[in-house]
Amino acid sequence: MSVLLDEEIRSQPDVLAGLIAQEGARVRRIVADLPPFAYALIAARGTSDHAATYAKYAWAALTGHPVALATPALHTLYHTPPRLDEALVVGISQSGQSPDIVAVVEEGKRQGRPTLAITNDGSSPLAAAADHVIELHAGVERSVAATKTYTAQLATIALLAAAWHGQPERWTELERMPDVLSAVLGGVDDLAQQAERYRYMEHCVLIGRGYNYATALELALKLKELTYVMASAYSSADFRHGPIATIADGMPVLLIMPQGAVFSDMLQLAQDLQMQGAELLVASDVAEAQALATTVLPLPPAVPEWLSPIAAIVPGQVLAMNLARAKGVDPDRPRGLQKVTRTV
Amino acid sequence: MSVLLDEEIRSQPDVLAGLIAQEGARVRRIVADLPPFAYALIAARGTSDHAATYAKYAWAALTGHPVALATPALHTLYHTPPRLDEALVVGISQSGQSPDIVAVVEEGKRQGRPTLAITNDGSSPLAAAADHVIELHAGVERSVAATKTYTAQLATIALLAAAWHGQPERWTELERMPDVLSAVLGGVDDLAQQAERYRYMEHCVLIGRGYNYATALELALKLKELTYVMASAYSSADFRHGPIATIADGMPVLLIMPQGAVFSDMLQLAQDLQMQGAELLVASDVAEAQALATTVLPLPPAVPEWLSPIAAIVPGQVLAMNLARAKGVDPDRPRGLQKVTRTV
Repeated sequence: MSVLLDEEIRSQPDVLAGLIAQEGARVRRIVADLPPFAYALIAARGTSDHAATYAKYAWAALTGHPVALATPALHTLYHTPPRLDEALVVGISQSGQSPDIVAVVEEGKRQGRPTLAITNDGSSPLAAAADHVIELHAGVERSVAATKTYTAQLATIALLAAAWHGQPERWTELERMPDVLSAVLGGVDDLAQQAERYRYMEHCVLIGRGYNYATALELALKLKELTYVMASAYSSADFRHGPIATIADGMPVLLIMPQGAVFSDMLQLAQDLQMQGAELLVASDVAEAQALATTVLPLPPAVPEWLSPIAAIVPGQVLAMNLARAKGVDPDRPRGLQKVTRTV
Repeated sequence: MSVLLDEEIRSQPDVLAGLIAQEGARVRRIVADLPPFAYALIAARGTSDHAATYAKYAWAALTGHPVALATPALHTLYHTPPRLDEALVVGISQSGQSPDIVAVVEEGKRQGRPTLAITNDGSSPLAAAADHVIELHAGVERSVAATKTYTAQLATIALLAAAWHGQPERWTELERMPDVLSAVLGGVDDLAQQAERYRYMEHCVLIGRGYNYATALELALKLKELTYVMASAYSSADFRHGPIATIADGMPVLLIMPQGAVFSDMLQLAQDLQMQGAELLVASDVAEAQALATTVLPLPPAVPEWLSPIAAIVPGQVLAMNLARAKGVDPDRPRGLQKVTRTV
């Protein structure tokens, strides 16, 4: 069994509690200090980019702020950075090392815009480049595949959303999430056995929508990194606009569908896919959805939808780790990857 | 042989010439009439979303306008549309029918923002919702997989970029593209035979960066729609942040790498992938890149990089069509798809 990755997955309730305790007040101060802005521009890669995708929903839905994802090549390779008038410029990076992400934040500062770094390393180049820094306090992440820093990034984005939103209830909901994660981790023991079924799976599809589109993207990346499965992630709407043609008999499709505003759209798609012969894996707290599944990734009930991605990724992390084990891959050391990736 | 798709692919030089002739003056008028805006928010799905991805590079690099991709679920399922202060709101849709895309443009209008529709149907709901409409003039697209409307959408975005940019040289470069497409189509005859090699390919990876990240995304969708291959598209930078772990001996990787500012970054990745045993397919005009490839998708030389996606997708369309034929699939009627997809 992978020791490091397993430890890091299981540390997530504590990491989350520590983050909220240590950074909560700072987040409120940053939000109070920021000048007005029309939209947020976020630069991020890999797992951090999936946290940015969560921000597209959480920040817009709770606070009305639209989010644009940056195109770092414009800064580093084309040398034609866009005009950033009216933007809050945000960089998200576990290591804070990737030059392309740092370049976007530096450009924001050069243009006189407010800048914010979200990173696990407060002494990194990214932290040095930004006006404001929120640290993840996740401890050193020793396994190559990011787990605890991903949920910590999501929680940081949720802290900012709650502070902008202003209602104490949102903050209270977030403070319950460490307990929710403990509950999730208490319900995943069957996944070690269930992963066996997918020993020879070579490709699969992951689908989420709204807040949990980020979960589909992140779980696809975990499967690629840890098991080398060709995993493709889609929103349910994008999936209907073309990729649905790839569904064949027995094709494994994992749907992230906790209770919430997008549930009925996801349920309709799940039913359609079952009719087409797909094998469904379902991450949900809803019995009607679980009943369609060959494999259930259980989620706890009554989690507010806006926070559900923090919980919904965790059974997927556990499934990916166990599938790596079933396939004979060392999940702590995926081939071809280092912990810190520097791209320009 | 598929008659409709083949006809539509071969019609692209004429469609492009017709579009520039019929909409050029209108595009200049729209650009002159638009009020100032800080960024563009684009709503699109499927192929149209890949055209929007091209706009992220073309509009920013030539005109400094940042581009955000909309999250329609915020409008249709969550009922929490973001504040669109300072935005130009753009909808791109071949049919102009999808309710989620229309909803974003309607919200832009409701908030008093300028709105623009890019569509092949000037009498569609999307066209009715927008202040300004640019029609693609591509004629009815009868094959389910979009080809001529994609290059027409790219050309429309390029027309807008050229008009904003103001230099007549950009416009002249664009007016040469119909001839460039004719040259591309004159060089693809070998692909019918070369497609045979991939008859039993089940998955593949597509990589582009900068302007041609859109090409990688669009070609992956063509392969999914036409051949049911599990095709995954990445930017070269995102690929290094995790998915590179999936590369195994013999894995087919198609790189879009015409001459330009991102070429050396792509070449480095191509060399790394060849060392790892991947089989390379290369769309390029550069001999050094072609020399690494098992299969070359030839591109004409001396196309300005900002317009290269209009040319670079075409050999891919031809390869996907021929691979469908080799696999015994009717490329005009992919399973599970209709020509018009309506999502909420």
